[in-house]
Amino acid sequence: MKILLNKLASQNEIADLVTVLDAHKLFFNVDQSSPVTTISVVGDPQVMTELKLENLEFVERIEPIKVSYKLVSREFRQDDTIVDVNGVKIGGDEPFITMAGPCSVETEAQIFECARIAAEGGAKILRGGAFKPRTSPYAFQGLEELGLKYMRKAADKYHLQVITEVMDEAHLDMVAHYTDIIQVGARNMQNFKLLQAIGKTKMPVALKRGIAGTIDEWLNAAEYIAAEGNMNIIFVERGIRTYETATRNTLDLSAVPVIQKLSHFPIIVDPSHGVGIREFIEPLALASEAVGASGMIVEIHPNPEQAWSDGQQTLNELEFKQMMKKLAVIEEAILKIKEI
Amino acid sequence: MKILLNKLASQNEIADLVTVLDAHKLFFNVDQSSPVTTISVVGDPQVMTELKLENLEFVERIEPIKVSYKLVSREFRQDDTIVDVNGVKIGGDEPFITMAGPCSVETEAQIFECARIAAEGGAKILRGGAFKPRTSPYAFQGLEELGLKYMRKAADKYHLQVITEVMDEAHLDMVAHYTDIIQVGARNMQNFKLLQAIGKTKMPVALKRGIAGTIDEWLNAAEYIAAEGNMNIIFVERGIRTYETATRNTLDLSAVPVIQKLSHFPIIVDPSHGVGIREFIEPLALASEAVGASGMIVEIHPNPEQAWSDGQQTLNELEFKQMMKKLAVIEEAILKIKEI
Amino acid sequence: MKILLNKLASQNEIADLVTVLDAHKLFFNVDQSSPVTTISVVGDPQVMTELKLENLEFVERIEPIKVSYKLVSREFRQDDTIVDVNGVKIGGDEPFITMAGPCSVETEAQIFECARIAAEGGAKILRGGAFKPRTSPYAFQGLEELGLKYMRKAADKYHLQVITEVMDEAHLDMVAHYTDIIQVGARNMQNFKLLQAIGKTKMPVALKRGIAGTIDEWLNAAEYIAAEGNMNIIFVERGIRTYETATRNTLDLSAVPVIQKLSHFPIIVDPSHGVGIREFIEPLALASEAVGASGMIVEIHPNPEQAWSDGQQTLNELEFKQMMKKLAVIEEAILKIKEI
Amino acid sequence: MKILLNKLASQNEIADLVTVLDAHKLFFNVDQSSPVTTISVVGDPQVMTELKLENLEFVERIEPIKVSYKLVSREFRQDDTIVDVNGVKIGGDEPFITMAGPCSVETEAQIFECARIAAEGGAKILRGGAFKPRTSPYAFQGLEELGLKYMRKAADKYHLQVITEVMDEAHLDMVAHYTDIIQVGARNMQNFKLLQAIGKTKMPVALKRGIAGTIDEWLNAAEYIAAEGNMNIIFVERGIRTYETATRNTLDLSAVPVIQKLSHFPIIVDPSHGVGIREFIEPLALASEAVGASGMIVEIHPNPEQAWSDGQQTLNELEFKQMMKKLAVIEEAILKIKEI
Repeated sequence: MKILLNKLASQNEIADLVTVLDAHKLFFNVDQSSPVTTISVVGDPQVMTELKLENLEFVERIEPIKVSYKLVSREFRQDDTIVDVNGVKIGGDEPFITMAGPCSVETEAQIFECARIAAEGGAKILRGGAFKPRTSPYAFQGLEELGLKYMRKAADKYHLQVITEVMDEAHLDMVAHYTDIIQVGARNMQNFKLLQAIGKTKMPVALKRGIAGTIDEWLNAAEYIAAEGNMNIIFVERGIRTYETATRNTLDLSAVPVIQKLSHFPIIVDPSHGVGIREFIEPLALASEAVGASGMIVEIHPNPEQAWSDGQQTLNELEFKQMMKKLAVIEEAILKIKEI
Repeated sequence: MKILLNKLASQNEIADLVTVLDAHKLFFNVDQSSPVTTISVVGDPQVMTELKLENLEFVERIEPIKVSYKLVSREFRQDDTIVDVNGVKIGGDEPFITMAGPCSVETEAQIFECARIAAEGGAKILRGGAFKPRTSPYAFQGLEELGLKYMRKAADKYHLQVITEVMDEAHLDMVAHYTDIIQVGARNMQNFKLLQAIGKTKMPVALKRGIAGTIDEWLNAAEYIAAEGNMNIIFVERGIRTYETATRNTLDLSAVPVIQKLSHFPIIVDPSHGVGIREFIEPLALASEAVGASGMIVEIHPNPEQAWSDGQQTLNELEFKQMMKKLAVIEEAILKIKEI
Repeated sequence: MKILLNKLASQNEIADLVTVLDAHKLFFNVDQSSPVTTISVVGDPQVMTELKLENLEFVERIEPIKVSYKLVSREFRQDDTIVDVNGVKIGGDEPFITMAGPCSVETEAQIFECARIAAEGGAKILRGGAFKPRTSPYAFQGLEELGLKYMRKAADKYHLQVITEVMDEAHLDMVAHYTDIIQVGARNMQNFKLLQAIGKTKMPVALKRGIAGTIDEWLNAAEYIAAEGNMNIIFVERGIRTYETATRNTLDLSAVPVIQKLSHFPIIVDPSHGVGIREFIEPLALASEAVGASGMIVEIHPNPEQAWSDGQQTLNELEFKQMMKKLAVIEEAILKIKEI
Repeated sequence: MKILLNKLASQNEIADLVTVLDAHKLFFNVDQSSPVTTISVVGDPQVMTELKLENLEFVERIEPIKVSYKLVSREFRQDDTIVDVNGVKIGGDEPFITMAGPCSVETEAQIFECARIAAEGGAKILRGGAFKPRTSPYAFQGLEELGLKYMRKAADKYHLQVITEVMDEAHLDMVAHYTDIIQVGARNMQNFKLLQAIGKTKMPVALKRGIAGTIDEWLNAAEYIAAEGNMNIIFVERGIRTYETATRNTLDLSAVPVIQKLSHFPIIVDPSHGVGIREFIEPLALASEAVGASGMIVEIHPNPEQAWSDGQQTLNELEFKQMMKKLAVIEEAILKIKEI
């Protein structure tokens, strides 16, 4: 619900109200950007009803939050949420963030090389898979904890943050120990128990859109995380499944402004999975920045031809660094555009 | 791999070979339907190589199983697999099996009424959700263990088997304690860790097709279950996501003969989720039987208008019983057709 | 609009009203199936307004037809429309009709053989393409008028009706001269000028669903034909484009009961294009009949391996005749089902 | 076929060969960008065979053009084709071109206002529909010739070129009389007879992608135009139909680099139809430019709320001019990027 206060409301009264909401374990957001203060509240409906807030003298009226995803919605919070990953900030007017690294962690040397390339190119975050969801049970499934260790060491050496996928609740503690951002893969967008468990960690989480997930389902999936008290969510558009087979998926860049309208959480783009073909990644990365995404996640490898997985959609060092230079030019342009 | 024996092979030699395969923990299938015996083997590639079976005098040659799903494929087993649920048989030339029940278990009285209607109508298996995957975290999520208890009691009273969904590994033991068939929902078709855990139970498992799952991905998902030694798999076609909004999903009945060609496991159809509109369920159920499915799973409720979930796609007692009579007529027709 | 008469209305008054509607060139349908007569009227809104029918003493009230397709809708006509093709009746409770023939007319001998097979198998209508819409301009485009002549002769010899596609208005007169049913191909579902021209012929027309046509668009496309006074429309479900590549298209059998609810015109199914793979056509044909379609259109060839187009989805003589015997068994079953 | 010449080939011999190809009415392209001259030839296969070009002393070898679309392919022509619309150039390294105007021409005043806004904003081409393909036959179908006249006058006053849609061959001459670019709408992408007729005009043609057209089908559709000798083709990406309903269509920006790789013809983007929602058009327009499109086509109206069609996806004067300023900033950035 949204509590619209009237002009009588003093800062003391607001502070008291906030204390009450907090004591009842309700989620809330105070918006004082307009003359009328609005406090959005989400939580146990019975508790909210019993508080009888509509009886308070300084409450003008109470309105429902109309969408089914509450904490995730712009109705709940009007300002952009900036997700802070140990000082690396994602969202709002923060600079475009690049997450780069291999599809899979293969060897210690390989992930260190990837980290070097990523850092030199200007990426702030190292990606890499230690647990790999593979269509076939007989395909390489990842180095598991060993991969996590290698990645952590490589990231630390090059002052990068780590993002990596967790595939099930059983490995969540282990993954959380090594990573800075927990990634939820496309196949798990609606693995609700996993989302709830991740919600409880309060750690930054990158929630990939399901292969055929609607934007509405995606926002509701994020609500499963937020409802556990985790407000560090990053949406990742990674292409949807359509009839077109010229590209691996159909990258839906329209999702960027749509999510930005409906939610306060940042959204980044994964052009590697979005198109799935190496030579088309750069133009789509430029488009992702121009459309207003807060960052991107991209696959790189010192030697893509010999990558254990996803080589056909992985950039080499030269391609990655070229792309990063071009992204910097678009970034400048976007700063100018914001002044128009 | 497939070991094609030559004419020299005696039954004793075959028995010895089987003993060796078994001792090495390989999966195998012996096909003696043609004059040339073929033994299909799946397992650790290194173990298979070290056996040097090609050197045996009675081995003609060795061929690979070409598809990525091995145990699930017709290449591995040529005969239809009949899944036996405590005497209720599904697949092959067995009668068309109906699984019926509510979307969610709501109350003890409701599930008993559903069980009565299901049994009177001729269903052999009671469906019902105790753990419900819901798009929104604020929607009703199921009665959990209490629901399982009610369902078990209701099924036992009416001599029905139970099918119910498990959403995560943490609840698998509990669900397995009460149910006869474990259902994997569409959202979890590629929740590989859950599939592996279910594989280890060796229990009958109904694997729903993902909302945008390809047939190839579906077969590979089943391989995750089979690779743990569980050869009691039932595919469930439940409609795929397309651009058409006149129905909830687009029921893909072509998947029935396609799966039957590629796999030896049975496939049933879920017309309730497939069309999502009550009045269209009966014609699609008739079509499901005519296309050759081994059964169906359908939502019923003593009072669909008051169902806690999915009421718009749920049949009442009269509609269900009418449909069952019509299905019996199609069944007779199919028996005649098999003689043509 | 729908004119609901009150109990005062005499048959004479109704007859007079009908004369007036006719004189004003309005389309109308009189429904006396219930005690209250309803006359549905479609046409120039201004003419309808100026008639001030609401002032007539025996008019209870006037209601709008709510859907955008008027003449095509069940709101306009409650009874099933039976399309009569020179005595061959399609729709309502008429027997399931089979249209069979080659993808393309290739030679005189080939189409005569097809006609023989079709007739012997029990088909009533001969299909065949003389103008072929091909993805590439360099592919075989059809025998054109020569093909039409061959087809007419072959059909006449075997007492069959002819259905063939017209691709543009320029050839409409020519095609109409030889055929009994004009087919509109999937690519032309929304070629509105062609639809209007076909509407003016008043001939039976088979309107294929567009490759990504929604049911709503399809009904509106039919309205373009009906609005020219042609009430001899047959819908043809032929599969829609989805992400699934295991079959050529995804045959949407749910469209059959949906169209039957929303429109009074008959719907038939094209399993050949629907699945696109020879061995899956028979089960889908059986399902099409069981779901309640009024007929089907199927590709046959004396020698599918040597067909100039679509050989992989074409039945040979034996396969076709087997299938027709099985369809006859389902037909019997459906007659029994109608009595339940 | 591609004729690869050897080093013996003199310019005289090449000139003679070209004369022969021309005399036999073959299409050809001479590429001398590398030391080895390649002449690509498309036309009647029999004629090409009879020329026995492989016997010429200065011919190294002959290779087939492997794709089904020949003239349209990069194999036929390696350089970018620049389409010249009376001096306005589209494609290659030419500046990003904007086509702007209303969905439908409504009144003389309206189209003049649109032309003024378009010109002031920096557009070079005026769009507007005089013949409107509408889902329902009862919706506004366009002003027809009157609309064309108004548009021509408005464009002339503001020194703009005209683009407008032709829906059928019968109106082609009339439309061609008034317009500078003929537009083929999404519903007509595979109206092959219309494509051939437009091919014969040799006029610039903007070929919209079908609502569910694959990139391969789109290229082949363009081949129908090119095979008639019209090499002035502009591809228009306008969004494809997917399951997502948050936007009108799913704008497939990946299609831009894919088409640029496979074809030498330019591609532009239609963000208005692509997203269908006013506030999302600007970000997608910026992305379209950043991804490398040669231009865009966008709907504007002096008063979108009162537009007779498509108002919800139409920009007003202020929005359009703001967007154009931002596009200019991206354009500058792209010039810098080309130097990296």
